[in-house]
Amino acid sequence: MSISLYDVSIPVFALSLTNLAAILDKAESHGEAKKVDPKVIPQARLIVDMLPLSAQIQIACDTAKGAAARLAGIAVPKHEDTEATLGELKARVAKTLDFVKTIKPEQLQGAETREVVLQFPQTTLKFNGLNYLTNFALPNFFFHMTMAYALLRKNGVELGKRDFLGPVQ
Amino acid sequence: MSISLYDVSIPVFALSLTNLAAILDKAESHGEAKKVDPKVIPQARLIVDMLPLSAQIQIACDTAKGAAARLAGIAVPKHEDTEATLGELKARVAKTLDFVKTIKPEQLQGAETREVVLQFPQTTLKFNGLNYLTNFALPNFFFHMTMAYALLRKNGVELGKRDFLGPVQ
Repeated sequence: MSISLYDVSIPVFALSLTNLAAILDKAESHGEAKKVDPKVIPQARLIVDMLPLSAQIQIACDTAKGAAARLAGIAVPKHEDTEATLGELKARVAKTLDFVKTIKPEQLQGAETREVVLQFPQTTLKFNGLNYLTNFALPNFFFHMTMAYALLRKNGVELGKRDFLGPVQ
Repeated sequence: MSISLYDVSIPVFALSLTNLAAILDKAESHGEAKKVDPKVIPQARLIVDMLPLSAQIQIACDTAKGAAARLAGIAVPKHEDTEATLGELKARVAKTLDFVKTIKPEQLQGAETREVVLQFPQTTLKFNGLNYLTNFALPNFFFHMTMAYALLRKNGVELGKRDFLGPVQ
Protein backbone atom coordinates (compact mmCIF):
# COMPACT_ATOMS: atom_id res chain seq x y z
CA MET A 1 0.00 0.00 0.00
CA SER A 2 1.19 3.51 -0.69
CA ILE A 3 -0.60 6.73 -0.01
CA SER A 4 -1.96 9.39 -2.31
CA LEU A 5 -2.29 13.13 -1.89
CA TYR A 6 -6.05 12.55 -1.74
CA ASP A 7 -5.62 10.44 1.42
CA VAL A 8 -4.00 13.32 3.28
CA SER A 9 -6.21 16.13 2.00
CA ILE A 10 -9.87 15.64 1.08
CA PRO A 11 -10.87 13.28 3.96
CA VAL A 12 -8.91 15.47 6.40
CA PHE A 13 -10.76 18.63 5.38
CA ALA A 14 -14.08 16.76 5.31
CA LEU A 15 -13.67 15.35 8.83
CA SER A 16 -12.62 18.66 10.27
CA LEU A 17 -15.40 20.66 8.57
CA THR A 18 -17.89 18.10 9.89
CA ASN A 19 -16.47 18.69 13.37
CA LEU A 20 -16.73 22.45 12.86
CA ALA A 21 -20.42 22.09 11.96
CA ALA A 22 -21.03 20.26 15.26
CA ILE A 23 -19.02 22.89 17.16
CA LEU A 24 -21.19 25.61 15.62
CA ASP A 25 -24.32 23.71 16.68
CA LYS A 26 -23.04 23.84 20.27
CA ALA A 27 -22.24 27.54 19.89
CA GLU A 28 -25.75 28.21 18.60
CA SER A 29 -27.35 26.35 21.53
CA HIS A 30 -25.12 28.27 23.92
CA GLY A 31 -26.09 31.60 22.38
CA GLU A 32 -29.80 30.72 22.54
CA ALA A 33 -29.53 29.59 26.18
CA LYS A 34 -27.78 32.85 27.09
CA LYS A 35 -30.18 34.91 24.94
CA VAL A 36 -27.33 36.45 22.96
CA ASP A 37 -28.20 38.34 19.77
CA PRO A 38 -27.30 35.92 16.90
CA LYS A 39 -24.95 38.52 15.41
CA VAL A 40 -22.83 38.92 18.54
CA ILE A 41 -20.94 35.62 18.70
CA PRO A 42 -19.65 35.83 15.09
CA GLN A 43 -18.05 39.18 16.01
CA ALA A 44 -15.95 37.72 18.83
CA ARG A 45 -12.25 38.54 18.60
CA LEU A 46 -9.26 37.44 20.65
CA ILE A 47 -7.86 40.97 20.49
CA VAL A 48 -9.07 44.00 18.53
CA ASP A 49 -6.50 43.69 15.72
CA MET A 50 -7.30 40.07 14.94
CA LEU A 51 -10.09 38.84 12.69
CA PRO A 52 -13.45 37.93 14.24
CA LEU A 53 -14.97 34.47 14.45
CA SER A 54 -16.92 34.92 11.20
CA ALA A 55 -13.70 35.57 9.25
CA GLN A 56 -11.87 32.70 10.96
CA ILE A 57 -14.58 30.35 9.72
CA GLN A 58 -14.74 31.90 6.26
CA ILE A 59 -10.97 31.55 5.85
CA ALA A 60 -10.95 27.97 7.15
CA CYS A 61 -13.67 27.16 4.60
CA ASP A 62 -11.86 28.97 1.79
CA THR A 63 -8.61 27.20 2.58
CA ALA A 64 -10.29 23.78 2.35
CA LYS A 65 -12.25 24.70 -0.78
CA GLY A 66 -9.22 26.28 -2.44
CA ALA A 67 -6.97 23.34 -1.68
CA ALA A 68 -9.52 20.80 -2.89
CA ALA A 69 -10.06 22.68 -6.16
CA ARG A 70 -6.43 23.59 -6.85
CA LEU A 71 -5.15 20.08 -6.16
CA ALA A 72 -7.86 18.72 -8.47
CA GLY A 73 -6.91 21.29 -11.13
CA ILE A 74 -10.39 22.80 -11.32
CA ALA A 75 -11.67 26.35 -10.78
CA VAL A 76 -12.11 27.43 -7.17
CA PRO A 77 -15.81 28.11 -6.51
CA LYS A 78 -16.43 31.61 -5.16
CA HIS A 79 -18.31 31.98 -1.88
CA GLU A 80 -19.06 35.56 -0.84
CA ASP A 81 -18.23 36.55 2.74
CA THR A 82 -21.69 37.66 3.78
CA GLU A 83 -22.33 35.58 6.91
CA ALA A 84 -23.39 37.49 10.02
CA THR A 85 -24.99 34.81 12.21
CA LEU A 86 -23.98 31.37 13.42
CA GLY A 87 -26.76 29.90 11.29
CA GLU A 88 -25.32 31.54 8.19
CA LEU A 89 -21.82 30.37 9.12
CA LYS A 90 -23.15 26.82 9.49
CA ALA A 91 -24.55 27.11 5.96
CA ARG A 92 -21.13 28.29 4.72
CA VAL A 93 -19.48 25.27 6.32
CA ALA A 94 -22.14 22.96 4.83
CA LYS A 95 -21.66 24.26 1.28
CA THR A 96 -17.89 24.04 1.63
CA LEU A 97 -18.20 20.46 2.85
CA ASP A 98 -20.54 19.62 -0.05
CA PHE A 99 -17.96 20.93 -2.52
CA VAL A 100 -14.99 19.22 -0.88
CA LYS A 101 -16.84 15.90 -0.96
CA THR A 102 -17.39 16.15 -4.74
CA ILE A 103 -13.64 15.73 -5.29
CA LYS A 104 -12.73 12.16 -6.23
CA PRO A 105 -9.39 10.41 -5.61
CA GLU A 106 -8.67 10.16 -9.35
CA GLN A 107 -8.85 13.96 -9.68
CA LEU A 108 -5.83 14.24 -7.39
CA GLN A 109 -3.70 11.71 -9.22
CA GLY A 110 -0.32 13.32 -9.76
CA ALA A 111 -1.44 16.42 -7.86
CA GLU A 112 1.75 16.32 -5.78
CA THR A 113 3.68 17.76 -8.74
CA ARG A 114 0.93 20.07 -10.03
CA GLU A 115 1.99 23.71 -9.94
CA VAL A 116 -0.12 25.81 -7.60
CA VAL A 117 0.15 29.60 -7.81
CA LEU A 118 -1.38 31.83 -5.15
CA GLN A 119 -1.70 35.53 -5.90
CA PHE A 120 -1.76 37.85 -2.90
CA PRO A 121 -1.88 41.65 -3.04
CA GLN A 122 1.79 41.93 -2.09
CA THR A 123 3.27 38.65 -3.27
CA THR A 124 2.92 35.54 -5.41
CA LEU A 125 3.56 32.09 -3.99
CA LYS A 126 4.38 29.14 -6.24
CA PHE A 127 4.31 25.60 -4.94
CA ASN A 128 4.14 22.06 -6.13
CA GLY A 129 0.94 20.37 -4.93
CA LEU A 130 2.65 18.48 -2.11
CA ASN A 131 4.28 21.56 -0.58
CA TYR A 132 1.14 23.60 -1.09
CA LEU A 133 -0.84 21.06 0.90
CA THR A 134 1.64 20.36 3.69
CA ASN A 135 3.28 23.77 4.17
CA PHE A 136 0.41 26.08 3.39
CA ALA A 137 -3.10 24.62 3.14
CA LEU A 138 -3.16 22.21 6.09
CA PRO A 139 -1.38 24.50 8.62
CA ASN A 140 -3.52 27.45 7.50
CA PHE A 141 -6.72 25.43 7.66
CA PHE A 142 -6.02 24.14 11.17
CA PHE A 143 -4.88 27.61 12.27
CA HIS A 144 -8.30 29.09 11.48
CA MET A 145 -10.16 26.01 12.74
CA THR A 146 -8.35 26.35 16.06
CA MET A 147 -8.92 30.12 16.25
CA ALA A 148 -12.64 29.49 15.76
CA TYR A 149 -12.55 26.90 18.55
CA ALA A 150 -10.52 29.24 20.79
CA LEU A 151 -12.95 32.12 20.32
CA LEU A 152 -15.96 29.97 21.18
CA ARG A 153 -14.25 28.22 24.09
CA LYS A 154 -13.12 31.55 25.53
CA ASN A 155 -16.69 32.81 25.30
CA GLY A 156 -18.12 30.01 27.38
CA VAL A 157 -19.18 27.38 24.83
CA GLU A 158 -18.51 23.99 26.42
CA LEU A 159 -16.04 22.42 24.03
CA GLY A 160 -13.27 19.89 24.48
CA LYS A 161 -10.57 18.39 22.31
CA ARG A 162 -12.98 15.65 21.34
CA ASP A 163 -15.18 18.22 19.58
CA PHE A 164 -12.15 19.46 17.66
CA LEU A 165 -10.84 16.06 16.62
CA GLY A 166 -14.21 14.34 16.10
CA PRO A 167 -14.40 10.59 15.48
CA VAL A 168 -10.69 9.99 14.89
CA GLN A 169 -10.45 6.24 14.30
CA MET B 1 6.16 10.44 -8.43
CA SER B 2 4.07 9.23 -5.54
CA ILE B 3 4.14 10.41 -1.97
CA SER B 4 5.12 8.69 1.23
CA LEU B 5 3.88 9.08 4.77
CA TYR B 6 7.26 10.63 5.54
CA ASP B 7 6.57 13.48 3.08
CA VAL B 8 3.45 14.51 4.97
CA SER B 9 4.74 14.07 8.52
CA ILE B 10 8.41 14.59 9.44
CA PRO B 11 9.12 17.69 7.30
CA VAL B 12 5.75 19.18 8.36
CA PHE B 13 6.55 18.81 12.06
CA ALA B 14 10.11 20.04 11.51
CA LEU B 15 9.04 23.19 9.67
CA SER B 16 6.39 24.05 12.21
CA LEU B 17 8.64 23.44 15.23
CA THR B 18 11.26 25.66 13.59
CA ASN B 19 8.59 28.36 13.24
CA LEU B 20 7.61 27.87 16.89
CA ALA B 21 11.22 28.40 17.96
CA ALA B 22 11.26 31.75 16.11
CA ILE B 23 7.89 32.70 17.63
CA LEU B 24 9.29 31.99 21.10
CA ASP B 25 12.30 34.19 20.30
CA LYS B 26 9.89 37.04 19.58
CA ALA B 27 7.97 36.30 22.79
CA GLU B 28 11.19 36.36 24.80
CA SER B 29 12.22 39.73 23.31
CA HIS B 30 8.74 41.07 24.04
CA GLY B 31 8.90 39.90 27.66
CA GLU B 32 12.35 41.44 28.12
CA ALA B 33 11.25 44.75 26.58
CA LYS B 34 8.22 44.86 28.87
CA LYS B 35 10.30 43.69 31.89
CA VAL B 36 7.97 40.75 32.52
CA ASP B 37 9.14 38.06 34.94
CA PRO B 38 10.28 35.14 32.69
CA LYS B 39 7.83 32.82 34.45
CA VAL B 40 4.74 34.92 33.71
CA ILE B 41 4.27 34.47 29.95
CA PRO B 42 4.38 30.63 30.11
CA GLN B 43 1.45 30.78 32.55
CA ALA B 44 -0.82 32.68 30.12
CA ARG B 45 -4.22 31.07 29.61
CA LEU B 46 -7.12 31.91 27.30
CA ILE B 47 -9.57 31.12 30.10
CA VAL B 48 -8.95 29.67 33.56
CA ASP B 49 -10.04 26.13 32.69
CA MET B 50 -7.74 25.81 29.68
CA LEU B 51 -4.10 24.78 29.78
CA PRO B 52 -1.42 27.48 29.95
CA LEU B 53 1.08 28.34 27.24
CA SER B 54 3.73 26.03 28.72
CA ALA B 55 1.42 23.01 28.41
CA GLN B 56 0.31 24.00 24.90
CA ILE B 57 3.95 23.93 23.82
CA GLN B 58 4.73 20.72 25.71
CA ILE B 59 1.76 18.95 24.09
CA ALA B 60 2.61 20.27 20.61
CA CYS B 61 6.15 18.92 21.11
CA ASP B 62 4.92 15.60 22.46
CA THR B 63 2.50 15.18 19.58
CA ALA B 64 5.28 15.69 17.02
CA LYS B 65 7.74 13.48 18.92
CA GLY B 66 5.14 10.77 19.51
CA ALA B 67 4.02 10.74 15.89
CA ALA B 68 7.60 10.62 14.57
CA ALA B 69 8.52 7.74 16.87
CA ARG B 70 5.31 5.73 16.51
CA LEU B 71 5.26 5.98 12.73
CA ALA B 72 8.91 4.88 12.69
CA GLY B 73 8.09 1.99 15.03
CA ILE B 74 10.59 3.06 17.69
CA ALA B 75 10.17 3.93 21.37
CA VAL B 76 8.88 7.42 22.12
CA PRO B 77 11.57 9.39 24.00
CA LYS B 78 10.33 10.75 27.32
CA HIS B 79 10.64 14.49 27.95
CA GLU B 80 9.59 15.62 31.43
CA ASP B 81 7.26 18.61 31.66
CA THR B 82 9.46 20.83 33.80
CA GLU B 83 9.67 24.04 31.72
CA ALA B 84 8.77 27.25 33.54
CA THR B 85 10.36 29.96 31.36
CA LEU B 86 10.33 30.80 27.66
CA GLY B 87 14.03 29.90 27.54
CA GLU B 88 13.26 26.45 28.90
CA LEU B 89 10.36 26.06 26.46
CA LYS B 90 12.68 26.99 23.61
CA ALA B 91 15.03 24.21 24.76
CA ARG B 92 12.09 21.79 24.78
CA VAL B 93 11.23 22.73 21.21
CA ALA B 94 14.89 22.38 20.19
CA LYS B 95 15.27 18.88 21.62
CA THR B 96 11.97 17.83 20.03
CA LEU B 97 13.14 19.17 16.69
CA ASP B 98 16.48 17.36 17.06
CA PHE B 99 14.64 14.10 17.65
CA VAL B 100 12.16 14.56 14.81
CA LYS B 101 15.02 15.26 12.41
CA THR B 102 16.72 11.95 13.26
CA ILE B 103 13.86 10.06 11.59
CA LYS B 104 14.73 8.96 8.07
CA PRO B 105 12.29 8.35 5.19
CA GLU B 106 13.09 4.61 5.13
CA GLN B 107 11.95 4.26 8.76
CA LEU B 108 8.45 5.26 7.69
CA GLN B 109 8.20 2.85 4.78
CA GLY B 110 4.88 1.04 5.14
CA ALA B 111 4.03 3.15 8.20
CA GLU B 112 0.59 3.90 6.74
CA THR B 113 -0.55 0.40 7.72
CA ARG B 114 1.42 0.14 10.99
CA GLU B 115 -0.89 -0.27 13.99
CA VAL B 116 -0.67 2.63 16.43
CA VAL B 117 -2.23 2.21 19.87
CA LEU B 118 -2.69 5.19 22.19
CA GLN B 119 -3.54 4.50 25.82
CA PHE B 120 -5.40 7.24 27.67
CA PRO B 121 -6.67 7.07 31.26
CA GLN B 122 -10.26 6.57 30.09
CA THR B 123 -9.88 5.02 26.66
CA THR B 124 -7.67 3.26 24.14
CA LEU B 125 -7.43 4.43 20.56
CA LYS B 126 -6.26 2.11 17.77
CA PHE B 127 -5.33 3.46 14.35
CA ASN B 128 -3.45 2.52 11.26
CA GLY B 129 -0.51 4.87 10.71
CA LEU B 130 -2.26 6.91 8.02
CA ASN B 131 -5.36 7.64 10.12
CA TYR B 132 -3.23 8.26 13.19
CA LEU B 133 -1.30 10.92 11.31
CA THR B 134 -4.16 12.61 9.47
CA ASN B 135 -7.00 12.35 12.00
CA PHE B 136 -5.11 12.63 15.25
CA ALA B 137 -1.47 13.72 15.17
CA LEU B 138 -1.57 16.57 12.63
CA PRO B 139 -4.83 18.19 13.85
CA ASN B 140 -3.70 17.85 17.47
CA PHE B 141 -0.25 19.25 16.70
CA PHE B 142 -1.63 22.29 14.86
CA PHE B 143 -4.27 22.79 17.55
CA HIS B 144 -1.62 23.27 20.23
CA MET B 145 0.69 25.21 17.90
CA THR B 146 -2.17 27.63 17.20
CA MET B 147 -3.14 27.90 20.87
CA ALA B 148 0.47 28.85 21.66
CA TYR B 149 0.36 31.48 18.91
CA ALA B 150 -3.05 32.75 20.11
CA LEU B 151 -1.86 33.12 23.70
CA LEU B 152 1.22 35.10 22.67
CA ARG B 153 -0.64 37.21 20.12
CA LYS B 154 -3.36 38.04 22.65
CA ASN B 155 -0.66 39.09 25.11
CA GLY B 156 0.86 41.64 22.77
CA VAL B 157 3.64 39.75 21.00
CA GLU B 158 3.77 41.07 17.43
CA LEU B 159 3.07 38.01 15.36
CA GLY B 160 1.46 37.44 11.99
CA LYS B 161 0.45 34.48 9.88
CA ARG B 162 3.90 34.53 8.30
CA ASP B 163 5.45 33.65 11.66
CA PHE B 164 3.08 30.72 11.97
CA LEU B 165 3.58 29.37 8.44
CA GLY B 166 7.28 30.17 8.11
CA PRO B 167 9.07 29.77 4.75
CA VAL B 168 6.32 27.86 2.95
CA GLN B 169 7.71 27.34 -0.53
